[in-house]
Amino acid sequence: MRILMTGAAGMIGRKLTTRLLKEGTLRGQKITALELQDIVAAPMPDAGGVDVTIHTGDMADDGAASKMIASRPDVIFHLAGIVSGEAEADFDLGYRVNLDGSKALFDAIRLVEGYTPRVVFSSSIAVYGGPFPDVIPDDFHRVPLSSYGTQKLMSELILNDYTRRGFMDGIGIRLPTICVRPGKANKAASSFFSGIIREPLAGQEALLPVPRSVVHTHASPRAAVGFLMHGAEIDGETVGARRNITMPGVAVTVGEQIEALGRIAGENVVKRIRDEHDEAVWALVKNWPTRFEGKRARELGFKAESSFDEIIKTHIEEELGGKIA
Amino acid sequence: MRILMTGAAGMIGRKLTTRLLKEGTLRGQKITALELQDIVAAPMPDAGGVDVTIHTGDMADDGAASKMIASRPDVIFHLAGIVSGEAEADFDLGYRVNLDGSKALFDAIRLVEGYTPRVVFSSSIAVYGGPFPDVIPDDFHRVPLSSYGTQKLMSELILNDYTRRGFMDGIGIRLPTICVRPGKANKAASSFFSGIIREPLAGQEALLPVPRSVVHTHASPRAAVGFLMHGAEIDGETVGARRNITMPGVAVTVGEQIEALGRIAGENVVKRIRDEHDEAVWALVKNWPTRFEGKRARELGFKAESSFDEIIKTHIEEELGGKIA
Repeated sequence: MRILMTGAAGMIGRKLTTRLLKEGTLRGQKITALELQDIVAAPMPDAGGVDVTIHTGDMADDGAASKMIASRPDVIFHLAGIVSGEAEADFDLGYRVNLDGSKALFDAIRLVEGYTPRVVFSSSIAVYGGPFPDVIPDDFHRVPLSSYGTQKLMSELILNDYTRRGFMDGIGIRLPTICVRPGKANKAASSFFSGIIREPLAGQEALLPVPRSVVHTHASPRAAVGFLMHGAEIDGETVGARRNITMPGVAVTVGEQIEALGRIAGENVVKRIRDEHDEAVWALVKNWPTRFEGKRARELGFKAESSFDEIIKTHIEEELGGKIA
Repeated sequence: MRILMTGAAGMIGRKLTTRLLKEGTLRGQKITALELQDIVAAPMPDAGGVDVTIHTGDMADDGAASKMIASRPDVIFHLAGIVSGEAEADFDLGYRVNLDGSKALFDAIRLVEGYTPRVVFSSSIAVYGGPFPDVIPDDFHRVPLSSYGTQKLMSELILNDYTRRGFMDGIGIRLPTICVRPGKANKAASSFFSGIIREPLAGQEALLPVPRSVVHTHASPRAAVGFLMHGAEIDGETVGARRNITMPGVAVTVGEQIEALGRIAGENVVKRIRDEHDEAVWALVKNWPTRFEGKRARELGFKAESSFDEIIKTHIEEELGGKIA
């Protein structure tokens, strides 16, 4: 079992690498090689007997994707991408990385005769645009309201068509908001969803820029890695003609997130959250999808956490060594 | 008012040209120039005082799209495309014409600063894939089951994103099956929907390859031209952020089509239809969308025929000089 991963230096890529090396097998086969691609060099993991190759560079460059698949990996995790805020701010970069990069990879695979690897693509719920019903059904239309969502959806469409035509064996995984993200706050408008949990647990103040009534769907980094692993292993026939799947998650209000934090860490930790309305953040967040039906994904065996408490406990266990500041 | 039309040599393009020259105005302004592009030379129309330019060639060629918009047309009708059967049979040609061609045109417009023409794009209900509910609502997801549908949907997404970002002012028109198509039968699986009306009216036998219970949505070539004209004139603010619109049409069973033919032309004409089941055609047709809600399009003022009788009468009037063989 040879595995290629694009975007391997990112948070999910590093966690997926760790998980793959820990499992040692994928699709019932021993993992023998792992090729890690990113625009910056992915960290060399402690790989035991697995043969690790690091690819560094832009996969949209002429010939780059062909080189990446030269060893004919059996499974490809395609995680590389520019985040939403950056894709909106830098039009050319967003289309180049998120659309041209995906297409370059998928076309490189298509052009190798008889080669149909499983390709697991990390898409996003940014493919959806409002107005939304209270619960978004699996057959709700996708009308992205960002360039990022547009690029992800276009990549999904190529994946689906190329799979239908037998050029590859793709599965698109539409990730919900990943929470609790480890590390520092970033400029993403969604950053606070993690910040109001992560910062108080680390003894720091966190600002809450939106009303506590906001509903949003979350999955932990561990659940996201699980989605990708299951996407690699699931039977394509069972998935059928619709290869892009909206993942399940935990839909809660911000208020419920904070209640869960209180239950787990106590009211003193909760007091580190300060409500400070930010009109710019609110203007974006109020148009985001809230709650997904996620019926199809659950039926296909994708597993999210069952409560926000579980999401917080996962964070404390994985990132804080079990300790709260 | 300067107008550019791609795919101008096709059936709809020629009818739209005739209509524009007959009206003499668009968006309340006198039409002064008409530029007609196609891969083969569009026929030179009888243009009165309108300045007509013919562009011949592949718009996906380097620099071709920039040349086409050199005169900064105010309205662009983008009709050019490879039909569904051909896009499925010739992978490279389909993606080149239907995706790269559209993107080349939209990018050429994007790269001219301060130039935001109205772009009316002829998309298709092929962006939808089954399984379908009995009536397909406006917010039903689009999961194309053909390369053609994939390419049209990707072009729609670019149009929507480029419009949102202020690079152009796009309107996507998802056409239903056009019926009655004039001319000869072609190899499209949908060809019989027109054939069973057109051939009997012309004194010829027609084969019906599917059960009479099949439901399908139709609009006449005249209605299609009307959709495109309205797409050029409609206020963009009113349309809002979702710039691609599923057109209304007449949803009838094949049996009802034939009943309408009987009412208008008599039972002797109906007798020229022979049921001859074709498994290959049926395999495709049974997965096609049947009936659309079309609520949004009607509210936005797009007008289809109100009955299949009207569709047949339009054909007799436009193509047969009012006479039945």
